Formats: sequence, structure tokens, C-alpha cells
Amino acid sequence: MHALAAELFPLPRSITGNGVRQTLARLAEDLPDLEVEEVPSGTRCFDWTVPPEWNVSEAHLTAPDGRRIADFAECNLHLLGYSEPVTTSLGLEELQAHLYSRPDRPGAIPYVTSYYKRNWGFCLTDNQRAALQPGQYDVVIDSTLDENGSLTYGELVVPATIETDAEVFLSTYVCHPSMANNELSGPVVATALFRWLWSLDERRYNYRIVFVPETIGAITYLSRNLDHLKKSVVAGFNISCVGDDRAYSYLPSRKGDTISDDVARHVLHHLAGDYAAFTFLDRGSDERQYCAPGVDLPIASVMRSKFGTYPEYHTSDDNLELVTAEGLAGGYRALRHCLMALEANRTYRATVLCEPQLSRHGLYPSARMPGDPKPKDHLNILAYADGETSLLQIAELLDQPIWDLSRAASQLCRAGLLEPV
Amino acid sequence: MHALAAELFPLPRSITGNGVRQTLARLAEDLPDLEVEEVPSGTRCFDWTVPPEWNVSEAHLTAPDGRRIADFAECNLHLLGYSEPVTTSLGLEELQAHLYSRPDRPGAIPYVTSYYKRNWGFCLTDNQRAALQPGQYDVVIDSTLDENGSLTYGELVVPATIETDAEVFLSTYVCHPSMANNELSGPVVATALFRWLWSLDERRYNYRIVFVPETIGAITYLSRNLDHLKKSVVAGFNISCVGDDRAYSYLPSRKGDTISDDVARHVLHHLAGDYAAFTFLDRGSDERQYCAPGVDLPIASVMRSKFGTYPEYHTSDDNLELVTAEGLAGGYRALRHCLMALEANRTYRATVLCEPQLSRHGLYPSARMPGDPKPKDHLNILAYADGETSLLQIAELLDQPIWDLSRAASQLCRAGLLEPV
Amino acid sequence: MHALAAELFPLPRSITGNGVRQTLARLAEDLPDLEVEEVPSGTRCFDWTVPPEWNVSEAHLTAPDGRRIADFAECNLHLLGYSEPVTTSLGLEELQAHLYSRPDRPGAIPYVTSYYKRNWGFCLTDNQRAALQPGQYDVVIDSTLDENGSLTYGELVVPATIETDAEVFLSTYVCHPSMANNELSGPVVATALFRWLWSLDERRYNYRIVFVPETIGAITYLSRNLDHLKKSVVAGFNISCVGDDRAYSYLPSRKGDTISDDVARHVLHHLAGDYAAFTFLDRGSDERQYCAPGVDLPIASVMRSKFGTYPEYHTSDDNLELVTAEGLAGGYRALRHCLMALEANRTYRATVLCEPQLSRHGLYPSARMPGDPKPKDHLNILAYADGETSLLQIAELLDQPIWDLSRAASQLCRAGLLEPV
Repeated sequence: MHALAAELFPLPRSITGNGVRQTLARLAEDLPDLEVEEVPSGTRCFDWTVPPEWNVSEAHLTAPDGRRIADFAECNLHLLGYSEPVTTSLGLEELQAHLYSRPDRPGAIPYVTSYYKRNWGFCLTDNQRAALQPGQYDVVIDSTLDENGSLTYGELVVPATIETDAEVFLSTYVCHPSMANNELSGPVVATALFRWLWSLDERRYNYRIVFVPETIGAITYLSRNLDHLKKSVVAGFNISCVGDDRAYSYLPSRKGDTISDDVARHVLHHLAGDYAAFTFLDRGSDERQYCAPGVDLPIASVMRSKFGTYPEYHTSDDNLELVTAEGLAGGYRALRHCLMALEANRTYRATVLCEPQLSRHGLYPSARMPGDPKPKDHLNILAYADGETSLLQIAELLDQPIWDLSRAASQLCRAGLLEPV
Repeated sequence: MHALAAELFPLPRSITGNGVRQTLARLAEDLPDLEVEEVPSGTRCFDWTVPPEWNVSEAHLTAPDGRRIADFAECNLHLLGYSEPVTTSLGLEELQAHLYSRPDRPGAIPYVTSYYKRNWGFCLTDNQRAALQPGQYDVVIDSTLDENGSLTYGELVVPATIETDAEVFLSTYVCHPSMANNELSGPVVATALFRWLWSLDERRYNYRIVFVPETIGAITYLSRNLDHLKKSVVAGFNISCVGDDRAYSYLPSRKGDTISDDVARHVLHHLAGDYAAFTFLDRGSDERQYCAPGVDLPIASVMRSKFGTYPEYHTSDDNLELVTAEGLAGGYRALRHCLMALEANRTYRATVLCEPQLSRHGLYPSARMPGDPKPKDHLNILAYADGETSLLQIAELLDQPIWDLSRAASQLCRAGLLEPV
Repeated sequence: MHALAAELFPLPRSITGNGVRQTLARLAEDLPDLEVEEVPSGTRCFDWTVPPEWNVSEAHLTAPDGRRIADFAECNLHLLGYSEPVTTSLGLEELQAHLYSRPDRPGAIPYVTSYYKRNWGFCLTDNQRAALQPGQYDVVIDSTLDENGSLTYGELVVPATIETDAEVFLSTYVCHPSMANNELSGPVVATALFRWLWSLDERRYNYRIVFVPETIGAITYLSRNLDHLKKSVVAGFNISCVGDDRAYSYLPSRKGDTISDDVARHVLHHLAGDYAAFTFLDRGSDERQYCAPGVDLPIASVMRSKFGTYPEYHTSDDNLELVTAEGLAGGYRALRHCLMALEANRTYRATVLCEPQLSRHGLYPSARMPGDPKPKDHLNILAYADGETSLLQIAELLDQPIWDLSRAASQLCRAGLLEPV
């Protein structure tokens, strides 16, 4: 995952443009089913309009002494996102209105955009900015804002192995230039989940994975697919900030009462123990759209360090040193267990009244392998398997991971003592 | 408010009689719509009967040395409420059975009544009582207990500015003689609320304000108006003990689950921060009747120092030094905000799916006036405006005062992004 | 109760056999209505089969020096429960596989059984075992495992004094040999409850008391009576471990939401103050069957020291010194109050609107006897008697014992101010 992130890192992503296309093309090498959609600029999507497509040929700022002090080719964060084309020369004072830096993080290039208000500018470290000398600065921004362009997104489905319309919805975004936790951790973990999903012998759900530009992309996607999603989606996760190794975080759906929320809390409790639990008031990514009133998809977020909470967020310091192989593996593991929990979460009914005589059914093994369910698990599952209490609820009652109980439940089913309803 | 309370202070109120009439007459100068009702003595009201009307011409107790040691004309608390007429002379020992004082508060005249059991007596400070000398005491109580009298109460309605039957019910009482927190704070704050209600451009509710003798008056009022009240009243408050400046208090309805309770807790949390939260077991005023089973009006109480909890309660020390202009202003402010919260508490629905593009709607003001809603407020309201969650519930989620959010909601409605359901 | 337990102590109970019959015969002297049922070995009961009937004529283990070191006649715990017949002589090493002792409690004979797997063995103190010398040991176990035998249980009903099908179900067990808290405390407390129930002038419920072998007996009983029980049983308790004086314990029904649970918590709160509250995960007696999915009887457990939590459990130290007269009296008192609470727990409705004028109804007694309800109780009951809130719920709100409030409720009914719904 870390190597894939490194490949994708330099591509000049934004909410539209060739950087998104290049990113999806590279992902498609690992995601053979990926379908890429183009939505024309000017298309109305709920309250929004798909903006002109933005591409950049070159962009640089040259100091009076001839040194290029900010060059898009060197680091795409240097250019204010959606900068309009401009070629000019101007004095330092006039230039300042077009410069962006972070005094609170003087060594980092900040990430700044101006999607919906025409503007241009350069982002640089506050140290660089403080050293700028008076004089004439040359500005070249060779960009296009094409009203006949389009917004690009990708999607695919890993089908269920049974006949069902039910879908699990996974969304991640591909619109941030060279940043790693927020954002490349998302697409690369989604890609790893895709591979794992295909490896399964059984899938009770279809898995829809979408790669969209944040906000406008999610809104565009919803405006074209809302009816289908509302009918089909039974659970899902927004995959964002899953790459560093400093924390685990949970951000609920609007009401926090969906199966995705239950699963997220269950998994983080058992995998991470202590984790940062946010509220929907702390939202900031595409859960804002997926959980909006009237949309109401059951989407929760399981993250490592949440957007907006770590100091490197939205700067050039959110890089591939911050995001580690271990961090990505942890993010992947948490989300994979969420999907495992969804698959495992069936509702069972005991087939006999009262406790069964377990020894008659070969469920008191004379020797137990490490990891084998304890006989107590069998009795506990049977004690709560009333056809209404889900295995996840039983797992919560027992404070045990559902993936352990699921094996005991399968043994009970094979013994004829339990059946899914 | 304090000046009005001072005017009303000396009037000889009881549960019936001319003191009530004089009080209502003085209030009517500020409440032009006040209608005064007379209910004949002997009228059956649920389990109760309206008692004979009680009036007092004079009442005094004279010591052996000729000094008047308790005179109704000097302080109407000196006479046991509902004392029957008597003219007699008797020794100190015999007199003691008719004297009432408070050893725990030796400088105060206690407030004592005997409405439903014939009796007579004088109330005096325990210091006075301890100094009484043996000898003959002259008792004169020139009172009447008129079986052909009546019980008097007042009521008025401030009408809604829209077509609606829904009423907010405000009740306060006018039966205690010279006491200030419990009771005059109630009628004077109710009078101030009346004035404020008339000043409003819009009222979504009719406001019914009643001035009744406590207990028997509330029961009498209910027995004549219960059907109408049960059909119309959507919220309300019993206004009692709203005049000192030492505390804020909340006493819930029977189940504590009405909109009046929600509003009361919301207002006290935001205005008073820390406040004394009682339970319905601590009830003692007319909420006993309004929240009785089968009556079940949605009535809560917002108070300053609650009846029964402060040392001056039901003594001559509950006076206009205890009740201050600031105390009354605080009681008024809390109840006015409760009514503001009721008016503001609508349920909204977002008119567009997903987040709107706020900048398109002029809701990212370039300059923000102090008190102007923050853009975050708009997005938060929209995020929860699902047509089911009320603005008060949203305000609780955001831990912000509803009166602030209400302005943001109005702006969103004007922008066409939100609508009340 | 302690004397009856002492009589029953030596009888050789097991899940079948003459020890159970002798126990029921002795109990029948105090329980004239007791009906004894025999269920043939081999009868299928849900997932189980009634085992062969086990009886023992004699069983002893003789050391190389001729001393009997374990004799069933001396203490029936010495024999592994359900030991098959054997007469043999074998060396110490070979014998060890058939010996049971508790190194953690070296002075006690442990209680061990092998109901469903053919085996034989002797139980002895670990001190005894450590002192065994090499040599030949003589084993005599003269037992029978009769496929044509039966499982024995007893039951009786104390009828309601009104016409009703509603039953309270009390279950206790009679299958442990010489042990006192777990088990004889159960049958003797049940016997005392029977006597108390007959002494009542009024019973709103039928009381069914069953004396069954644990697990297989309860399952057998349920398999024959489930339909009736599901239709009739409104509350009940499994009576186990009610004899020592060290603690009170509560173990809930599966969901902990039945009236039996409410009553158990209420009684223990008021009688015991602090008590050990377990969860259904700590289950271990016949609540496993009564609360199984599909059975779902409303059965909770009120205990002294719970099975499995005290060091003497399932050893010869669980004797009649551990179980005391005071301990039994406490267990009886708690369960009796549970039944009192069930009888008292009616739902009332106030017959008049608003508070009544209590003095008119003689409910302000001039002199109050100790234990008489306080007038405040009357008003509080009336304030919540809405025809939906049960007296137990009112008692919880007031944090007062229901048996106190019940007297006030009866007075209100007699005064015509309250009526049951």
C-alpha cells in the first residue's frame, strides 16, 4: 500500500482534471473492474454545478534575483488550487495578497484552494515568505478552466456470492494533490480491501467502492445514484485518513444508530481498545453528504488520525513519512474487520428449546486448539439466539469480538443446534 | 416590577375576599384585557367546595398593659388566615393555643392559615411572644365568613397573530398577604410578560394568563375550563417565586417530558448555567393540580429560590428587600426566554439534498456583526433539519441557545434552503 | 427451616433415584398438596433423554492396611455421582485416575458427578489423598443404573383466592447430596413460603412450586408443561442458595426486564441495601432453562451467596454450619417480600381530578401509629395514579417500599379516592 501511495503522490489531483484521470488509471491497474465516469462541467447536481475543468501546464513564481521560489512542477501544493491563468510581473507588496503561508507551521507549504471564486496564488512556507526581498516578481500560471470539461470519478462493484440486492458502500476521494494521510491512504486502503473482498469464498453483500472528488464529487455521485443507493445500501464507510499510526478514530453517522456505527465501535473497541470517538458535529468529509437529511445512507467513518486534528493536516508535511506501512496496515485491518463483522452479523435462532446436551453434539472438544471457541461461547450464543438479537448484539453482551463468536455460531449451525433467520 | 409589587404588598389577600379583588383591580390598570370572574361560595369543584368568602374589618390583640401587640391593620400577617369573628378576653395561658410563632426564626411573623377548619389566632414574632406577661388579653377579630360570597380570579388572553387554537398557559397566584417572593413576584412578572407579548410582531400561540388563588383557585379554574385547556394548551408555566436573586430553580411536570420541561431546562442551562433541578416530588404550588393524572397539562416551573427552600419562606421576612429589582428582572428574563424558545421551536426541513453551496446564497458574509450567526450554524441546522428533529433538539445537540439558532434558521428560510414543516 | 434441612441433609439425592423420593416424601409431610411425578428413563425431553435411574446400596474404598478411607454410608459425597457398579482391586497409581480432591481446599470433600459418561470414582479430601500409601486398594461400588427406572419430581399449587389463571412460578431443586446452601436452603425456604402463602387471606395469583432435579429435571418439567407455563406464568423465582448469612444476590432473567426482575431489585434495595447484582452471563442454575429463547418465562433469582462465588461451594464444607437459621430467615424474608410485592403491585387510577381535599376523607389522622402511612404518601400515590403507572413504579419513584405504599393505597381505595384498573 505504501508503494502505491508513493506512485500516486506526485499526480496533480484536484476536483477535476487530468490528475484525477491519471490517478484512476493507475488504480485501475489494481482494480480491473473500475469504471470511470465523466460528468460535464455545468451539470447541475442538487444545489451545485460541476465547475469548469482545471488543468495546469506550468506555474511558477520567480523572484527579483531570478530564482524560482515556487514551482508547480516541483511541488503541486505551491499553486493555489483552481488558480486562473495569469502572466504578470508585480512588486512584493502587491504579490502578498496572492501568497499563502502558515505562520503557525513555518516550514510547511499549506494546501489552499479557491474552487468557486476566481483567484490565483502561490503557497509557500512561511520561512520562504519571510525571506522575500522587495522587487519585481514574475508570475506565470499556464492553466485552463474549461467550461467544456468534466468531473471524473471511478466506481466498481465486488458482487455478492448469493442472490441479493443489498450493498455495502465504500467511498474514498481522489482530489487532493501531494498529501498522504488526507488523502492517498484512502484510495490505497480501498484498493487493498477490494483485493481482500475478491479473495473471499462467500460474500453476503455486494460491495460498491467509489473514488470521487470530495464534496462536489460525492454530491455529483449522489445526484446520479441516490434512488439506487437508498434502496440497496445497508451499511458503509467513508474511507479517509487511514494511514498514520498515531491513533484510531470513529466519526458516527448523523444519528449514530446505524449498523455501520455499531460495527465501527465494536471493531475499534476490540482492535484498538482506546480510540477517539467524535460526534457528527466534527464531520468534515463526505459523510456530510451521505448522512444529509433525505440522503440518510448508513455511513460511518473509521479512521486513524482524523482530518483537522493533526498538525500536518492540509500541508506538505502530510507526507509519506507521516503515513507509514504500519499505519496503512492498521487502517486496512480496522476496515477489513468492519466488513468481516458485517458479513458475520447474522441473526440466529436456537433450534431446540432449553440448553442442548452439548456433549451429544461433539461440542465439548477433548483438546482445544488455540483460538477455538470455548464451550462457554456455544452456550452463550444459544442463550441469546432468540431470532431477534443479532450476533453483533450478542458479541456486545459478551464483550467478545464477533469474529470469534462467528466461528462458534458456525459450529452450532453445523451441529443443527442453531439456524440463521 | 418592584414598584408594582410595593403597591400590591399591603393588600389583604386570601383565597377569597376583597384583597383579591383589590389586587386584580390594580393589575387591571396594567392589563387592560383582564377579565375578573366570581365563583359563588358553595360551588363544587371536583373534590372541593368553594369556601365562604372571608373579609376582615379589624383585628387586634391587646396586652394587659393596653398595648396592641398584634394588629391586622399594621401587618396583615398578624391574623391567622380565615380567622372566625371573635371578641373576648382571656388569660395568657388560654391565649397561647391561639398564638403562632417560629422559634427557629424568632424575629419574623409567620404566615399561618386555617381555611377549612374553623379557628382564630394571631401570628407574632417569637421574640414578642416570649416577652408576653401574664394577665388578661383582649381579642377583637371583626371578620366575616360569608356563605353567599365568592372566590375571585382573573384571566386574559394575548392572541396569536396567526390563526390557531394552540395556547400557552401561564398561571400565577393572588392569595398570599404581604409576602414578596412567594407571592407578589409572580403577578408582577406575569404582568411584564403580558406587556412583552403584546410588543411582539408575531405570536404563533395564544397566551392565556390566569391570576388565581393557589390550590382552590387553580382547582376551581380547572373545573370550569378543563376541556378547553386539554384541547388547546401546548405548553405553559406556573409562575411562582420569581423575585429574589439568589438562585434559579426548575421543577418539572409530572413526567418531566413535555416541551415546557425541555424549554425550561434549555433556558436555564444557557441563562443561568448552574441551577437547582427539583423533581415532581418537590412540588408544592399549582403544578400539583395542572399536572395531576387526568388533567395532565404540560406545565413546568421556572423559579428563582423555590418555595419551601429559603429561610424567609412564609414569614414576614419574605419582603421587598428579599425580592429585588435584579431578582425580578432575572425571573422575567428566564420566563421571557422560555416563551421565546417556544415561539422559535419549529421543525424544519432542508429544501435541497446534500449540503448547499452556501456562498451562492450570500450566507458567507464578508463581514460578520457581533451576534450574527456563524456560517457553521447554518450548516449545522441544515445537517439536522430532517423534518423530524425540532430546532430545540438541534440546539441541544449543538449546545447553543435556540434564540441564536433561530436567526440562522430564518436566514436559511429566506434563502430558500430551509422550510418549516 | 434449619431443623428440616438437617433432616434432609444425609439423604442420598442425585438427579434420579430413591434419595429424591425420600426427600420429596419428607417434604410432603409439610406440603400436603405435593404431587410426585415419575418420568421413565429414556423419555426424550427436548435435546435430552432421561438417564437410567441410579441407586447405591453400598460403596467404599479400602486401603492396603484395611481401613475404609471413603465410605458412601458415612458421607454420600465420597462417591462420584452416577458411578457405575464395580468391584475390583488395584494399585495406587491406577486408582489415582478415579480419585477426586481439591488441592485448593485440602480439608474438604469435593462434589463431583459424571451423569452422562460412564465412570466411577471416589471423592476425598486432598489431605487424605496426599497420605495414601502405595499398595492394593479394594473398590466396592454396589450401584444400579436402571434403564427401566425414572426421574422423580414434585409440584403443588397454592390457589388464588380470586378467579384467575395467572400463576407465580417458584422452582427449587432436589438433586444434590449432603450440601446445605446449594441446595437444601432452597427446598426448606420454598416450604416456608408455602406455609406463608396458605396463611394469606387474599392471593391474586396461583402459586406453583416445583421441586425438580437441576438441569435435567427442569428441562423434563418444561418439556411436559411448557404450553401451560407460557400461558399462565406472570412472574417467578428460581430458589437456590438462600441459606447463608454473608450476602444477598440478584441474578436477572435473560433480558432483566420482567416484573420479577423489577420486584427482585426493589426488595433487595429496601431489605438488603447493598447487594451483589449479577448478569445473565453469570447464570448457572435452572434460570438457564426457564429463560432460554423460546421458553422465556419471567424468572429471576434472589439469593444469599450465589452458587460458584463462595469457597465452600460444591464441597462438604457447604454444610449446616455455613447455612444458619439467620441466613435461612433472610433468604425466606427476601422471597416473601418479593411475593408480597407482586401481590401489592396493582395499577391504580385516581377517581377525582386534581388533588382531593384529604381532610374531608379522614386521611389526615390526628394521631399516627408507627408504620402508618404518612399523609404525604397518599398525595404522592394520587399524584402518579394515572392508570398506567404501577404501584411498583410509583414506589421506585418515591424510593419507598411498595409494602408501605400498599397500605396507603388501600386506605385511598376505601375512601373512594383511588381504584385499581
